[in-house]
Amino acid sequence: MPQNRAWTLASFPTGWVKEDNFKLVESPAPQPKDGEVLVKNLWLSLDPYMRGRLSQQKSYVKGVEIGEVMTGETAGEVVASKHPKFRPGDTVTAPSGWQLYGCHEGGLLTQVDASRVPLSYFLGCIGMPGRTAYFGLKDIGQPKPGETVVVSAASGAVGSVVGQLAKSAGCRAVGIAGGAQKCAHVVNELGFDACVDYKAGNLYRDLKEACPDGVDVYFENVGGETLDTLLRLMRFRGRIVVCGLISDYNATEPYGVKMFRSILVNRLKVQGMIVFDWLERYPEANAALLDLVIAGKLKYRESVLEGIESAPRGLIGLLKGENFGKQLVKLA
Amino acid sequence: MPQNRAWTLASFPTGWVKEDNFKLVESPAPQPKDGEVLVKNLWLSLDPYMRGRLSQQKSYVKGVEIGEVMTGETAGEVVASKHPKFRPGDTVTAPSGWQLYGCHEGGLLTQVDASRVPLSYFLGCIGMPGRTAYFGLKDIGQPKPGETVVVSAASGAVGSVVGQLAKSAGCRAVGIAGGAQKCAHVVNELGFDACVDYKAGNLYRDLKEACPDGVDVYFENVGGETLDTLLRLMRFRGRIVVCGLISDYNATEPYGVKMFRSILVNRLKVQGMIVFDWLERYPEANAALLDLVIAGKLKYRESVLEGIESAPRGLIGLLKGENFGKQLVKLA
Repeated sequence: MPQNRAWTLASFPTGWVKEDNFKLVESPAPQPKDGEVLVKNLWLSLDPYMRGRLSQQKSYVKGVEIGEVMTGETAGEVVASKHPKFRPGDTVTAPSGWQLYGCHEGGLLTQVDASRVPLSYFLGCIGMPGRTAYFGLKDIGQPKPGETVVVSAASGAVGSVVGQLAKSAGCRAVGIAGGAQKCAHVVNELGFDACVDYKAGNLYRDLKEACPDGVDVYFENVGGETLDTLLRLMRFRGRIVVCGLISDYNATEPYGVKMFRSILVNRLKVQGMIVFDWLERYPEANAALLDLVIAGKLKYRESVLEGIESAPRGLIGLLKGENFGKQLVKLA
Repeated sequence: MPQNRAWTLASFPTGWVKEDNFKLVESPAPQPKDGEVLVKNLWLSLDPYMRGRLSQQKSYVKGVEIGEVMTGETAGEVVASKHPKFRPGDTVTAPSGWQLYGCHEGGLLTQVDASRVPLSYFLGCIGMPGRTAYFGLKDIGQPKPGETVVVSAASGAVGSVVGQLAKSAGCRAVGIAGGAQKCAHVVNELGFDACVDYKAGNLYRDLKEACPDGVDVYFENVGGETLDTLLRLMRFRGRIVVCGLISDYNATEPYGVKMFRSILVNRLKVQGMIVFDWLERYPEANAALLDLVIAGKLKYRESVLEGIESAPRGLIGLLKGENFGKQLVKLA
């Protein structure tokens, strides 16, 4: 029987997450019962939403409790199955959390075809982050050809897809990222029209230059001062897709948004989203994103850490913006 | 030739508006040219949006300039006409501003039938404030029967209509107003289910008690801490109609909204509005509101000051929440 290793929650972080908020525990991998499937996880996805699970505050889903395995989506291979739809060797994505083996009811697994794209992509541009970009931009942002779309965290898993979808929709795509290297990647590799380095310290001036006609759609992943800056640049009847507010997640005091008035003056529509709301339309997004990847119209970069041990460190780096591309942990 | 008296802008206010920001000037009333109509104004409407016109900041329409007659809507009687559609004695609403006589192109006037309701109502519950309530609630708030609708400035011209329309739509209507007298009026006269006195100092606790299931629709007229409090009480997929932010209008530093995170967590839709956006649907609103007034289902209270001299004082009082009902100046 294989040995499982799992990160459990040891304590709730206050402010920034620390490695000792987690505890690595070992136990034999479980055996599947009737209807269950045992998955050997090959990839673990690290995502900003995880910060929200490490809190006793109300959020859109229940948080992790002390002693529980930390939440997360994985991609892996079926090693044992007592469910008629799954056989050993099948590739799947699973809600296993931060562990090497997950035992799940078959209904919680998604079979994926890893013959044409790498398995890990189903945790990224063709997975939850890609679908988030797809539905948020299309249904809330509603970009029209010729409009300007700005996205923060533009080199990240969601942001990189948002900008490329905006280009496909005939828009001007402008990113915001931290550092010259990420900005160069966003423009040269991902094909955005421009990317502003927020670390350069002139966000308003630089964005105004990159968006001479103002901003029609802002896809918000970070919050804080960036949000206030964009509120100053939004055009009449602009849309703001509130997908994430990562700058707030580790703050002990929330940032006070000063330019709320822009919502009134410019008649903006500001809407919060979470991808679960489009569950019944996942196949539409999956097919569209897969086609774009295969056609070479959706570029994608991964940031890979090796081994389950590195998961807490990976999340901390992600929350600080240290990753460059979709953050993954290679488990095997 | 009658003598006109007009309030012009003398200086831009910083923070609170003061009487000496305005200057009262006299001149002979103009004679209408071809296509024009001379209106003797009987009523002047004072409205919170006027604070926005007294600023060099960008807003949804151009501000008033120094020396210009202060903006405002009036109701009055045609005294001379060189326009085929208007005859002396006709009752109209007009964009005359703060003055006794206005000379306008006929296309800028709206003929109103003051035979069944008082003329002044066309500046209030059947006028711009009523239409603002109607379209904001119906098109953005989209209340469903059984939902809870909260409106701030509930005894005011817009708020009082919002709550009564919410009741007509089968909702629980909860107001926020300043002082026990206004709150009693909102419940006893206007028929809201509850009204919370923000001056009592327990807004969160009192609102939570008045809205045990949370808030589905918040119609925002005030902003500031009230907005933050409501963001804490909004339900999943709630809607916030951003119609006004009066608490910010006189602030030299804008309030920092701390609970923006609620937009994400609860997937709220927050949308700014101005009634001009529904121009082509004004007849629909006018007819619906008139019917409700005549049927006794839309109650309405006016706060009347006498004489053109009192206009600056009236606006200052309105911005401080001293009015009780729709603020008007009786000009003749």
